[in-house]
Amino acid sequence: MARETRRAILTAAAELMRSRGYSAVGMKEIAAAAGAPIGSLYHHFSGGKVEIAAEALQNAGAAYDLLIPTIAQQYDDLGEALEGMFMQAAEDMESSGFMNMCPVGSVAAEVADTVEELRQATGGVFISWVEGGTAYFSARGLAPDQARAITVTLICALEGAFTVARTLRSTEPLVSVGQVLGRQYRGVALTPLCVVQPQP
Amino acid sequence: MARETRRAILTAAAELMRSRGYSAVGMKEIAAAAGAPIGSLYHHFSGGKVEIAAEALQNAGAAYDLLIPTIAQQYDDLGEALEGMFMQAAEDMESSGFMNMCPVGSVAAEVADTVEELRQATGGVFISWVEGGTAYFSARGLAPDQARAITVTLICALEGAFTVARTLRSTEPLVSVGQVLGRQYRGVALTPLCVVQPQP
Repeated sequence: MARETRRAILTAAAELMRSRGYSAVGMKEIAAAAGAPIGSLYHHFSGGKVEIAAEALQNAGAAYDLLIPTIAQQYDDLGEALEGMFMQAAEDMESSGFMNMCPVGSVAAEVADTVEELRQATGGVFISWVEGGTAYFSARGLAPDQARAITVTLICALEGAFTVARTLRSTEPLVSVGQVLGRQYRGVALTPLCVVQPQP
Repeated sequence: MARETRRAILTAAAELMRSRGYSAVGMKEIAAAAGAPIGSLYHHFSGGKVEIAAEALQNAGAAYDLLIPTIAQQYDDLGEALEGMFMQAAEDMESSGFMNMCPVGSVAAEVADTVEELRQATGGVFISWVEGGTAYFSARGLAPDQARAITVTLICALEGAFTVARTLRSTEPLVSVGQVLGRQYRGVALTPLCVVQPQP
């Protein structure tokens, strides 16, 4: 029960921050959205709002660790995979009424100069995404340096395109970036992942 | 004098929002930073903080309208121009201690779902940048569609790279994105701008 309350608080905080940012969200709102008395927020998180936010951002970020592999596994061409990710994001944004697709990037931009604990938390999320994407694209045949540069570019371009797309209520930024970025990697093969076969 | 006070209020608001975002900045802070009594903020801006923020963002955005032409004019190769913009940004970020290079993007990401007036103000800035960059690259010989897609991609990628670079206190995002984005346009010529010569 305590664990469920804790989880509800973190989920509520992540969803509130996704749409409203960090500063605009108060403890009362988090409590209301979590269906928990405000005292239980301080009981579970003695560090208060910043501690809740840090853990909520880490959890929300971890939930996206497999996003690149999940989408890229549908492709055997790097250019198509990159374009495919932006097209998927464009479709998801439009069908959700331009919801913020990333629970981390907009808060990271807001707090980078002012809330050191959250700069570190969001930085940890970005590092995890970069390292995961680099390992994935390396496993699919790219040289590690290229895998890393492409992963970093993919993450930066997605984050920026989310911001501009939400602001303009338009999928054009995602579509354009996907096409521009994907074009140069058309014809670059993604090799199949080696799967270790169980011995009979 | 009234005009100077007004301008001081807008400049102070823009600089505070650049580092702290919209929600975390209060009218008292804007007044203190502008060296103006708080009553004069309401005197000049009857719409209060949101009106100040909207005009401050528009002004700050307009100040960057010529950024793409200013940097790109140093190049006659599109790939080098694109990479050059990211390298310049990396240098500026590092030498400023990772200051937020964009006074608009981080606030746009924060308020897109919650403060409609500021979504429109930041949207107007993005549209102005896209249209200005498209016109510039078209004038330098790119097809209008390509000029627009490249401008949109450049703006999105810069915005995302600023966020990730600030968060990680690292220039890697800017350098990587610049290299990846620039590579495919190496060898694409930017023609000289036609300058109308005065008749003798």
